Amino acid sequence: MLSDDRLFPADPTTREIARRLFASIRGLPLISPHGHTEPRWYAENRAFPDPAQLLVVPDHYVTRMLVSQGVTLESLGVARRDGGKTETDGRTIWRNFAKHYYLFRGTPTRLWLDTTFQDLFGIDELLTPSSADRIYDTIAAALQTPAFLPRALFERFNLEVIATTDSALDDLSWHKMIRASGWAGRVVPTYRPDAVVDADRATFQTDLDRLGEITGCDTGSWGGYLDAHWERRAYFKQMGATASDHGHPTALTADLSEADARGLFDKVRTGKSDAGERELFRAQMLSEMARMSAEDGLVLQIHPGSWRNHSPAMFATFGPDKGFDIPQRTDYVGALKPLLDRYGMEPKLKIILFTLDESTYARELAPLAGVYPSLKLGPPWWFFDSPEGMLRFRELATETAGFYNTVGFNDDTRAFPSIPARHDVARRIDCTYLARLVAEHRLGEDEAHEVARDLAYRLPKEAYGL
Amino acid sequence: MLSDDRLFPADPTTREIARRLFASIRGLPLISPHGHTEPRWYAENRAFPDPAQLLVVPDHYVTRMLVSQGVTLESLGVARRDGGKTETDGRTIWRNFAKHYYLFRGTPTRLWLDTTFQDLFGIDELLTPSSADRIYDTIAAALQTPAFLPRALFERFNLEVIATTDSALDDLSWHKMIRASGWAGRVVPTYRPDAVVDADRATFQTDLDRLGEITGCDTGSWGGYLDAHWERRAYFKQMGATASDHGHPTALTADLSEADARGLFDKVRTGKSDAGERELFRAQMLSEMARMSAEDGLVLQIHPGSWRNHSPAMFATFGPDKGFDIPQRTDYVGALKPLLDRYGMEPKLKIILFTLDESTYARELAPLAGVYPSLKLGPPWWFFDSPEGMLRFRELATETAGFYNTVGFNDDTRAFPSIPARHDVARRIDCTYLARLVAEHRLGEDEAHEVARDLAYRLPKEAYGL
Amino acid sequence: MLSDDRLFPADPTTREIARRLFASIRGLPLISPHGHTEPRWYAENRAFPDPAQLLVVPDHYVTRMLVSQGVTLESLGVARRDGGKTETDGRTIWRNFAKHYYLFRGTPTRLWLDTTFQDLFGIDELLTPSSADRIYDTIAAALQTPAFLPRALFERFNLEVIATTDSALDDLSWHKMIRASGWAGRVVPTYRPDAVVDADRATFQTDLDRLGEITGCDTGSWGGYLDAHWERRAYFKQMGATASDHGHPTALTADLSEADARGLFDKVRTGKSDAGERELFRAQMLSEMARMSAEDGLVLQIHPGSWRNHSPAMFATFGPDKGFDIPQRTDYVGALKPLLDRYGMEPKLKIILFTLDESTYARELAPLAGVYPSLKLGPPWWFFDSPEGMLRFRELATETAGFYNTVGFNDDTRAFPSIPARHDVARRIDCTYLARLVAEHRLGEDEAHEVARDLAYRLPKEAYGL
Repeated sequence: MLSDDRLFPADPTTREIARRLFASIRGLPLISPHGHTEPRWYAENRAFPDPAQLLVVPDHYVTRMLVSQGVTLESLGVARRDGGKTETDGRTIWRNFAKHYYLFRGTPTRLWLDTTFQDLFGIDELLTPSSADRIYDTIAAALQTPAFLPRALFERFNLEVIATTDSALDDLSWHKMIRASGWAGRVVPTYRPDAVVDADRATFQTDLDRLGEITGCDTGSWGGYLDAHWERRAYFKQMGATASDHGHPTALTADLSEADARGLFDKVRTGKSDAGERELFRAQMLSEMARMSAEDGLVLQIHPGSWRNHSPAMFATFGPDKGFDIPQRTDYVGALKPLLDRYGMEPKLKIILFTLDESTYARELAPLAGVYPSLKLGPPWWFFDSPEGMLRFRELATETAGFYNTVGFNDDTRAFPSIPARHDVARRIDCTYLARLVAEHRLGEDEAHEVARDLAYRLPKEAYGL
Repeated sequence: MLSDDRLFPADPTTREIARRLFASIRGLPLISPHGHTEPRWYAENRAFPDPAQLLVVPDHYVTRMLVSQGVTLESLGVARRDGGKTETDGRTIWRNFAKHYYLFRGTPTRLWLDTTFQDLFGIDELLTPSSADRIYDTIAAALQTPAFLPRALFERFNLEVIATTDSALDDLSWHKMIRASGWAGRVVPTYRPDAVVDADRATFQTDLDRLGEITGCDTGSWGGYLDAHWERRAYFKQMGATASDHGHPTALTADLSEADARGLFDKVRTGKSDAGERELFRAQMLSEMARMSAEDGLVLQIHPGSWRNHSPAMFATFGPDKGFDIPQRTDYVGALKPLLDRYGMEPKLKIILFTLDESTYARELAPLAGVYPSLKLGPPWWFFDSPEGMLRFRELATETAGFYNTVGFNDDTRAFPSIPARHDVARRIDCTYLARLVAEHRLGEDEAHEVARDLAYRLPKEAYGL
Repeated sequence: MLSDDRLFPADPTTREIARRLFASIRGLPLISPHGHTEPRWYAENRAFPDPAQLLVVPDHYVTRMLVSQGVTLESLGVARRDGGKTETDGRTIWRNFAKHYYLFRGTPTRLWLDTTFQDLFGIDELLTPSSADRIYDTIAAALQTPAFLPRALFERFNLEVIATTDSALDDLSWHKMIRASGWAGRVVPTYRPDAVVDADRATFQTDLDRLGEITGCDTGSWGGYLDAHWERRAYFKQMGATASDHGHPTALTADLSEADARGLFDKVRTGKSDAGERELFRAQMLSEMARMSAEDGLVLQIHPGSWRNHSPAMFATFGPDKGFDIPQRTDYVGALKPLLDRYGMEPKLKIILFTLDESTYARELAPLAGVYPSLKLGPPWWFFDSPEGMLRFRELATETAGFYNTVGFNDDTRAFPSIPARHDVARRIDCTYLARLVAEHRLGEDEAHEVARDLAYRLPKEAYGL
């Protein structure tokens, strides 16, 4: 179904170069330093549910496109918060999906799914209403076999290491179970403290109480609260974590005095803060996290710029992560300055910046990462984790930041079966970009081979300390 | 003069695919759901004036480029408001234009005009000072023949339907005359109420008085004013309209309480509002229009982001629409939220969004249209109605919004003779983009044929309910 | 080492066209209307120092990339303000540079340096740790020969004219010396009054005192201060200047009344202004400069949008221009309006706009320059003086502004030996862009030849009045 030349440029000379580059890296192990698979899967190693529950219902790339054309989330089996009726039959959901599969023409979802269908499940026909049942049956049958259990897939995928994303309040029990099991697969947690940093969340106060209980620190005081972070970071690190991750609405940072920070904490802790103070608290906490990173070496990932739950009605009915998060214009140059002024030249600090605002690649992010030793550029994120998005990233960032201030690929997904497909797209596109440089005599082919290897394997390992 | 391969990519494989795609759609009827031709032309069916009056004087794409190089609008025959002397001789204007025709190298105007010269008037030489008179004579002679009367051209252009843009105060008498004439050409109006929504206009108060007279509604009260809109929308709809159109400086919307809306109306109606209140009134009216659209089914077009009449001196001398409208940065994610919170999931509401800020395609518009069922993306507008602009649109929007949240092409022009040329460019560029997807094995060629047809014909008909 | 096809597109047809276009312009003299070479070099005509001092230490493109990977400025021989220890051995610095040369893969610096190594110094191997010494020796030896003295290089480079950038307080003595020497090379100054316009600078008051001494004008009063500018502009013009240059943080302009301007001047002159007033003063001064330009004909260059010295620590240690200037979002449409409202249609005024915010090319700059006769677009600047940056500029600006509202290339460099390499890149990329237009039948090849010549030679001469 899929050409082995997919995503390579049509020009024969350039395509030949891209093929050679890709041939030399396609077999390299996958490094997955940032993602959202469940540690429980690897711990329990149980069979995945039916094809719809695996590939449609939880994938907001998929459901949002169908919603945009008038399909309801209920009919796609997405649970309502009020427990209201939703479709539960996997095959019915799958047929609905198949009927609308043409909507994904030209999208990365189409590429990921077609690749997964073909390479993982051996399917050789396009998903259409008439092939829907056959494909459903093929996948459903495969999922019941040992070869499709999570650990078997992990090995088949040639994953050298995968990072999960875990709440600061998580006890990492699944991670413990994985370690205790004797299985050789390397699964590491990532410290994600948004719940105990973002005072705009309804659960902020109770989550801080829990953070206190877990750590034995007094999270009613600024000092105790910071101690609790230190505590948790150390625990995550001990469990294999090499990074933290922060999903703030903006990239704002602050550098408050000790006294001001304490006063601000007291306000947000007691629920007496206004919106500006809560934003300032998040800003200050990014700097505190940078300070801790500069000491404990956890890599600091900043993922700003998403307006979460843009539709209050959909949020009320279905909850978060249902495709209604919309990017916003994001500033970095001013926003990061307080943090950079304080810690930007720290030798041990490593910050990886992401964006949903591509206008910042060439204007802000590449110039910043191209001079501050603490800054690196994360790969194209979310809506930009796509062939065109990746090409734009290279075209916009490379001339100022080079390749070596970037960190390779993140699959960033909870769609476990699609992980090889996602890395495949990223590797092909990097080869496409490099092939163009070679064909235009901007880079020697021997050098391009080295860069391709670095982007696929060495840089993500080094950048994340894996 | 023009190659039949124009605008297709140079790579032979990709070009072959583009040719095949284009061959299958080039003969499809033209759908023109948004434009600025005069209904009077079709009603009266009189010969167009001389070549300069037809192709130079009224075309702000043309005159602005010449002005940028020091040519005066007077010398191009553009009327001064004070009645001051301007060039009236068509041939003199045409020679001036021909002398500067090289300025259009690399612009869409050049493509549209060359195509029009060749395909419509059978001219086979480039416009230069030395060919100027010959070309002028050829066009002038043609315009006097029956084959170049508006209705004959309409038919020759294979126009299935064309929409005009009409003030809310228009009596649509030309539209009536067209209908009464028995001519089969389908010309429909579009409801454009800016004059009675934008209180920044000097004529706002008197226009509201007139709106009251026309409708018999009390446009001195909020309720009566809304009734007047209902009334007019119903009349436009009865006359064939399927859409409204709104040219606001920003995309701001609001969702005021009944009481606040009434209070705000009273202020703007009595001229006691400040600039912020007038902006808020436009914002509220977009939401009101959305509410009405969700009921009467007129498609809501939003065209924000132009700083109209940027040069006060040129506006004072020559009036509006003389090339001095300049795009501005435009936000959608926050601006549209009040409207979307209220009506975004309404099944019958269809909003088509346009932009003059391309940085919003991938960051804001595609993510919004890729999830809200009420939103669709209009084609590249104005300065971006161009080969590069269209390619960027597809490259930036498709991966998130797909093809099926876009609505095909708008020629958006008052330059009637150029309509086929404009659709020709749009169809060629869509085929170019699709050919690249096929050549890079991102889409099957059979699917690309279907998409090409949909973009050229089916989607504009469906999106506009035509 | 370098292919003579470098930077040309891989498609054979397009490449052939690019070759033909480039062949017809590669021998044209270089016009360098904006740059930062030292007039002293041409005046004294002494040998350049060692390779590291010439090519590494002063080049912030080079040093910033190495700093981003943890190399210290001290180890690269950059002087500390406190006189602290830095590396002084050229060969040691060079080896450090060579060790990190791979970081520049895919960057314009790599292209400029490789071209310079090959074309100027006859080097035929890539710079690596193992070739570092050989290349160092070759360059060092060459620099001691008469053929590598500044004037000899100027002639070898086929420079028809080069402009330097000179403080308003400069006595232009090196320029005088060049003129007095009888040497035929044309080196002209540029009036850069930032020091006496930007009241945010620590030296503003004393610099205004000096301006008064130099000109004999009373720079304690608004009128005397303006007279001093007139005086200096006249002197610069007499010494060959055809342009002024203004590096403001933003593009803001103002059009204050005489009284308000005087009051504002009194505040900034006496150090009683706040940040907003100092910004307003710069804004007003851009308009004053436009007024003067409209009279004396000096071309006004505006270079806004750089956040200078983003890292206070690095600024404190090493001073300005060390790679820590970061672009910011920049607005033009509103910012330039006060100036344009007053002087935008002045026939003698020529303003050349630059940007570090590429999102403004298509949205703001091309629409503005495509209608205001006083406005032209400068070439891609700084981080965007690169193959991808130049292609984006043409793709984003040409369709609205055409080619003839652009002004050809600026090398904008203090890296004298790289000047031919920089023009080579610019000419190749323009040929690449034009070749694509020809191959896609959007422009005739004969016309493309004319445009290529215009961009390489005629337009910069005309735009800068050289």
